[in-house]
Amino acid sequence: MKSAPGFLLAAKRCEIHGLEQLAITAELVGSIDRLVHVLQKERGASNVYLGSGGTRFAAQRLQIIAESAAAEAEVRQRLYRLDTDSGRMAGGARLFSRIAWVLHGLDALPALRERIAAQALNAAQVTAALSELIAGLLAVVFEAADTAADPAISRALVALFNFMQGKELAGQERATGAAAFAAGRAAAVHQQRLLHLIEAQERCFQVFAEFAEPDALARWRAQQSAATLAELERLRRVLCVAAPEGALDTDLADVWFDCCSRRLDAMRDIEDALAAHLQQLCAVKLGEARADLQNHTSLVDSLAAAGPGGAAPVAVFFERALAGAEGGGALLAADGLGPQLGRSLLEMLQAQARRLQAMSDELNAVRGALNERKVIERAKGLLMAHRGLTEDQAYKLLRQTAMNQNRRLVEVAEATLALADFLPPGQ
Amino acid sequence: MKSAPGFLLAAKRCEIHGLEQLAITAELVGSIDRLVHVLQKERGASNVYLGSGGTRFAAQRLQIIAESAAAEAEVRQRLYRLDTDSGRMAGGARLFSRIAWVLHGLDALPALRERIAAQALNAAQVTAALSELIAGLLAVVFEAADTAADPAISRALVALFNFMQGKELAGQERATGAAAFAAGRAAAVHQQRLLHLIEAQERCFQVFAEFAEPDALARWRAQQSAATLAELERLRRVLCVAAPEGALDTDLADVWFDCCSRRLDAMRDIEDALAAHLQQLCAVKLGEARADLQNHTSLVDSLAAAGPGGAAPVAVFFERALAGAEGGGALLAADGLGPQLGRSLLEMLQAQARRLQAMSDELNAVRGALNERKVIERAKGLLMAHRGLTEDQAYKLLRQTAMNQNRRLVEVAEATLALADFLPPGQ
Repeated sequence: MKSAPGFLLAAKRCEIHGLEQLAITAELVGSIDRLVHVLQKERGASNVYLGSGGTRFAAQRLQIIAESAAAEAEVRQRLYRLDTDSGRMAGGARLFSRIAWVLHGLDALPALRERIAAQALNAAQVTAALSELIAGLLAVVFEAADTAADPAISRALVALFNFMQGKELAGQERATGAAAFAAGRAAAVHQQRLLHLIEAQERCFQVFAEFAEPDALARWRAQQSAATLAELERLRRVLCVAAPEGALDTDLADVWFDCCSRRLDAMRDIEDALAAHLQQLCAVKLGEARADLQNHTSLVDSLAAAGPGGAAPVAVFFERALAGAEGGGALLAADGLGPQLGRSLLEMLQAQARRLQAMSDELNAVRGALNERKVIERAKGLLMAHRGLTEDQAYKLLRQTAMNQNRRLVEVAEATLALADFLPPGQ
Repeated sequence: MKSAPGFLLAAKRCEIHGLEQLAITAELVGSIDRLVHVLQKERGASNVYLGSGGTRFAAQRLQIIAESAAAEAEVRQRLYRLDTDSGRMAGGARLFSRIAWVLHGLDALPALRERIAAQALNAAQVTAALSELIAGLLAVVFEAADTAADPAISRALVALFNFMQGKELAGQERATGAAAFAAGRAAAVHQQRLLHLIEAQERCFQVFAEFAEPDALARWRAQQSAATLAELERLRRVLCVAAPEGALDTDLADVWFDCCSRRLDAMRDIEDALAAHLQQLCAVKLGEARADLQNHTSLVDSLAAAGPGGAAPVAVFFERALAGAEGGGALLAADGLGPQLGRSLLEMLQAQARRLQAMSDELNAVRGALNERKVIERAKGLLMAHRGLTEDQAYKLLRQTAMNQNRRLVEVAEATLALADFLPPGQ
C-alpha cells in the first residue's frame, strides 16, 4: 500500500525492526559483559601465575579458563542470532567489523594460553594482550551504542559502555598496583600510569552517572561511600607518593589486590543490573512500538472503510497554510468535505513527526557524549603516532593543554585533530 | 559462517545493501527535484491566474498542471521501488514518515486546484499552500541526506538539498516581488520578507558551495557573474528601498518575473547536473563495494583452503601487544606458526577498520552542516511559538543577536534552545 497511511505504517515497521535488532544486540552486549569480566579475572590470575614462576594460582587459572570458555561460547551463540546474511542490519557494517576483529582475537586465545602455561611470556605481555582483546570487546558495545536509533536504549548502552570501560580501567589499575607492590617499588612510569588510570576511570564514571537510570546510579553512589573507598585511597596514596627509589611493603600486594577485587566484584553487580535494565528497556520499547502499530493499523483501516470521501484528506492538509495566509481566515472551516477522518490522519502524521523529531534531538544529545570520546581517543592516537608518546603521555599532554588554556578537553582534542594535516606523516 | 572472516564479509554486505537502498533513494530524490520545479511553476502560474481575475495564464496553468501530474506520477512510481515491507530500510522510520506527509499533501492537491480554478482562494493562500507541499518534498531530500551512511553520497545530497532549498527561496522571492510590483507598492512586511528570502538563499548557496562537486560549483559560479545578476540586483534595490507609501512602476512586474524566471531556469540546469552526479556517485560506490566484496571473498576462500593451520590467526592477533609490552621485543617474530595468512586477515580487518573510521569521521563533518540547519530551524520555531513572531522576525532576531554578541548564528540558536525549558509553554 504505497499511500500516505501505507508509508506511515511502513515507518512504524522500520522502528519495530530496528528495536528487534537492538534487543538481539542488547543480549549480545550482556554476554560480552560477562566474558569481559571473566577475561579480567583470567588476566589477574595469569599475572599471579607468571609472577610466582608458576607456583601460585595454577589450579585457579585453569578454573577461570573454563569459565572464560563458557562465557565465550555464550557470546558466539549470541552472534548466531545476528542478521548477518541479509546485509540489512542497521549499522551492520561497523558493528560486524568490530565483531570480526574480536573473533579473530578469540581464535588466537588458546595459543596465547598455551604460552602462558609454558611461562613463555611475562606478566606485562599477558596484560597487554588480554587488554587488547578486552578493548576489542568494549568496542563492540561502543558501536552498539553509537548505532542504536532509540535514544532511551542508546542512553542505557552509553551508561553500560562507560561503566564497563571504567571497570576495565579499574582492573588495569589493580594489575599495575599489584605489580608495583610485588616488586617492592613503584617506578615513575608506573606511577604516571596509575594516575592516568585513576583519572580516566573518573571520566568514565562521570559519563556513566550522566546517562544511568536512577536505580543503578543509586547503587553506584552507595558503593562510592567514603568508608568503602578509604582503604583504596590510602593504598593509592602509598603507591603514588612513593619515591622512585623508595621501598614498598610487599605484604601490601595482597591487601591491594583484595581491596581492588572487592571493588571490581561490587561493580560487577551494577554491570549486571545495567545489562538487565537494557534488555528490559528493549522489551518495553518493542511492546510500545507494536501497540502503536496496532493502533495505527486500526485507524488506517477505519479510514479505508469510510470510503474515498472519508479517507480523502481533501483540503485538511492545506487548511493551516490557507488560514494563515493573508486574507485567509477561517475560510476553510466551512468547507466540510469529510474533514474528520482526514484530520485524524493528519494528526497521526503530525504526532509521528513530532515524536521522531524529539527522538532525533535526544539521540543527538546522547551521541554527543560518544563523539567526545571518539575525538579524544583519536587525538590521543594522533599524538602517539606523530610524537612517539605513550597513551598516558598523550592524554596528559591534552589535559595539561586544556588546563593551561582554560578550555574543555574535547576542544583541545578537536584543535589537535584540526592540526593533523600539518603534522608530519606518522610511524 | 559466524567466524571472523564471515563477519568481515557480512559487514561488506551491509555496506552494499545500504548503497543499493541509497541508489533507489537517489532516484527518488531526482524525481522529487523535477516535481518541485513544476510545482514552483504551477505556483507562479496560479498566482498570475488569480491576480488577473482568471483572465491570464488559464491555458498555461492547465498545461503546467498536466506536467505536474506527470512528475507526480514519476515520484509515486519511484516510491514503489522503496523497501517498505520488510521494515529493514536504514533510516526508514524518518524517511517514510516524511513521505507519508508528502503523499497526504499530494492527495489534497486536486481539491486545491479545483478551488483555484473557481477563484475561491487568493494568491497569498495558494502560495502558502503550495510552499507547504514543496517544503514537505524538500524535507524528504533532507532526510535522505541525513540518513545516508556514505559520506560522499551524503555530501552530494547535502549539496543538492541546499541548492533546492535556495532555489525554492528564490522562487518565493519571485512571487513576493511580483505581487509587490503588480500592486504598485511594497509594504514594509513584504520588504522584510524579501530581505529575509535573499539572505536565506545566500546561506543555502554557501552550504551548497561547501559541499558541491567542482563541476556543478563552476557552473554555479559562472551563472553568478556580475553581468547576469546586475538586473536582478537593480530590481531588488527598487523593491527594498521603496518608501512604504511610494508607488512602484507596475510595468516592472513582468520584467521582474522574467528576470527571476531566467535565473530559476538556469538553476534548474544545475539541479539536473547535481541529481545526475548523485546517481552516478551511487553507481560508482556500489561498483567499488561489490569489487571489494569479491576481493575479500577470494582472500577468505584462500584462507579456508589453507586449512586450519593456515587460517588460524595463532598469535598474530596478539603480536603487536606482546611486542609492545615491557620485556616483549621481537619475541614473536620467531614464532612462525603459519603467520602469513593470519597476517593477511589481520591486515584486511585493520584496513576495514581504518576505512570505516575515516568514513565515520567524514560523515560526522557532513552531518554537522545538517545539524546546524536543524538547530537554527528549531530555534526559529521556538521563537515563533513562544513569542508570536513570524518566521522572518524570528530569523532576524537570531541574526541580530548573533551580530550583537559577535557569535555564530548556530551558537545563538543553540543558546535559544537551551533556554527552552525556561520559556512559558507555547500555543
